[in-house]
Amino acid sequence: MTNAKLVECVPNVSEGRRRDVIERLSDAAASVAGARLVDVHSDADHHRSVFTIVGGSDAVEESVLRLAAVAIEHIDLRQHRGVHPRIGALDVVPFVPLAATPMSVCVQLAHRFGRRLAEAFAIPVYFYGEAALLPERRRLADIRRGQFEGLTESLAHDPGRAPDVGPNTFGPSGATAVGARQPLIAFNIWLRTSDLAVGEAIARVVRASSGGLPGVQALAFTSSRPGMIQVSLNLTDLAATPLHVVVAKVHEEARCRGVEPAESELVGLAPASAVLGTAAAALGLPSLETRQVLELAAEIPSVIPSLQPTDLPI
Amino acid sequence: MTNAKLVECVPNVSEGRRRDVIERLSDAAASVAGARLVDVHSDADHHRSVFTIVGGSDAVEESVLRLAAVAIEHIDLRQHRGVHPRIGALDVVPFVPLAATPMSVCVQLAHRFGRRLAEAFAIPVYFYGEAALLPERRRLADIRRGQFEGLTESLAHDPGRAPDVGPNTFGPSGATAVGARQPLIAFNIWLRTSDLAVGEAIARVVRASSGGLPGVQALAFTSSRPGMIQVSLNLTDLAATPLHVVVAKVHEEARCRGVEPAESELVGLAPASAVLGTAAAALGLPSLETRQVLELAAEIPSVIPSLQPTDLPI
Repeated sequence: MTNAKLVECVPNVSEGRRRDVIERLSDAAASVAGARLVDVHSDADHHRSVFTIVGGSDAVEESVLRLAAVAIEHIDLRQHRGVHPRIGALDVVPFVPLAATPMSVCVQLAHRFGRRLAEAFAIPVYFYGEAALLPERRRLADIRRGQFEGLTESLAHDPGRAPDVGPNTFGPSGATAVGARQPLIAFNIWLRTSDLAVGEAIARVVRASSGGLPGVQALAFTSSRPGMIQVSLNLTDLAATPLHVVVAKVHEEARCRGVEPAESELVGLAPASAVLGTAAAALGLPSLETRQVLELAAEIPSVIPSLQPTDLPI
Repeated sequence: MTNAKLVECVPNVSEGRRRDVIERLSDAAASVAGARLVDVHSDADHHRSVFTIVGGSDAVEESVLRLAAVAIEHIDLRQHRGVHPRIGALDVVPFVPLAATPMSVCVQLAHRFGRRLAEAFAIPVYFYGEAALLPERRRLADIRRGQFEGLTESLAHDPGRAPDVGPNTFGPSGATAVGARQPLIAFNIWLRTSDLAVGEAIARVVRASSGGLPGVQALAFTSSRPGMIQVSLNLTDLAATPLHVVVAKVHEEARCRGVEPAESELVGLAPASAVLGTAAAALGLPSLETRQVLELAAEIPSVIPSLQPTDLPI
């Protein structure tokens, strides 16, 4: 894979329960030489799976197109009920520049992928993030407003909701948001309470849009785990608000409300800087650099085992 | 560099104050193709520098021999006063297997290096760790008993202290312990007190030899930082006692005694598993795998900048 155009893509698919479908999606994503499927994270409550693919830009694009075909064939949004907001079978497709790849490569990639998706499958496509064509479409939450169910009506009556490419109507596969962005961290924290209002209050305290921590998006979800709810976080500015700061804040806000935090989960991958920053803070180190990690400094190959089928969640 | 014989060597040299000598030592260690000097950690209180070199076994051996020549030329142990125990200018030379390299390669490497060092510089050499020829020489502390000053007399009167190779007497360069071992973590924690007895009590609580945590060696040192002492740790069994557990224990024991922990420092490198384990614990994650770190999963080259001369401490 050429370093110049190394990219990551993190398609979010509205299927988190049927193991056979998740396996087909994984197989499709892993079927292109030069694109590596490095993580699959499925959540039955969210009814959603997040795939992480890295490689050269052309190979990654092809990999996501193959995954799209499987998602569109097997997922019917009319039957889909999960706690996570969504507008389509292939719900969100962000392209992320890695190493020396400029953001412009991912913006072009998003536009090309979006057009191919719209043409091949008659899917309405909205461009978001750095690939947004309209300023009011930079934020994913604005595109997803009303979700799958509301979007049908909006498309019929509100010209402002017309897709950037693709038809003005959709079938059981819904619509897709395609974007370009910097790496982010998706991170969920369970709390030992059944009271969703506690999670909603904490989400309001930490999220940037209600005056909380910069670069933090937060939602509270019910959970199938008995006596638990979940605070679901997206961290988009790790320099402004490091991961360990948000987690400590959520834990503290929970305890203030008499609620014990339970375990957390990372959805997809985290940048090395977030892991090193978290470890440094926990150990009392002023900093911790990648060159201080033995395997990285020694450039040991195959530190990373390939994803095995048995690693598949669910 | 061939992966089959990838090794690390972490020579400890009894010079932590003279910048020009530390630069000469670094230049010598970095002068062999195929051996990378990835870290230099100098400590003026310890009067000691720790060099981390990684690469193919032959290149690393040559790099450490060149460093040895500089150490032996410039360091006079008769003038050396520091808080850290030592027996020689080139005090300790551990070889560590990396990646798929078997320990036997490092044992052979230690023996060959030790013989070459003894012959070239008339240095008494003791083999320790996995390279020990006598069971009572597995532990470095036993070899270093009496230190440089005591060893002269011991060599003259106690046949049990005779070196494994090299002469039975030494000059201003002293003796050297050469060994093979698994990776360890060297980690120092400052505490906000001038009372060394507090540090000594904490060191006794945490170290394995006095019934503390398995795989933990600990000493307390005075410090030139005003109002501070240091607890200096070596962790040799990270599966039994992870880094973050020891650090939390030292912090807790200090606070129990009314002493606030100050910052920590990592000497040399830490295995990725220790960094990931620390981050997982801090974030409430059941585990964190190397494949969940973006740069590792994407195998992004040159995550690691080479060590620059300006990075040199002191």
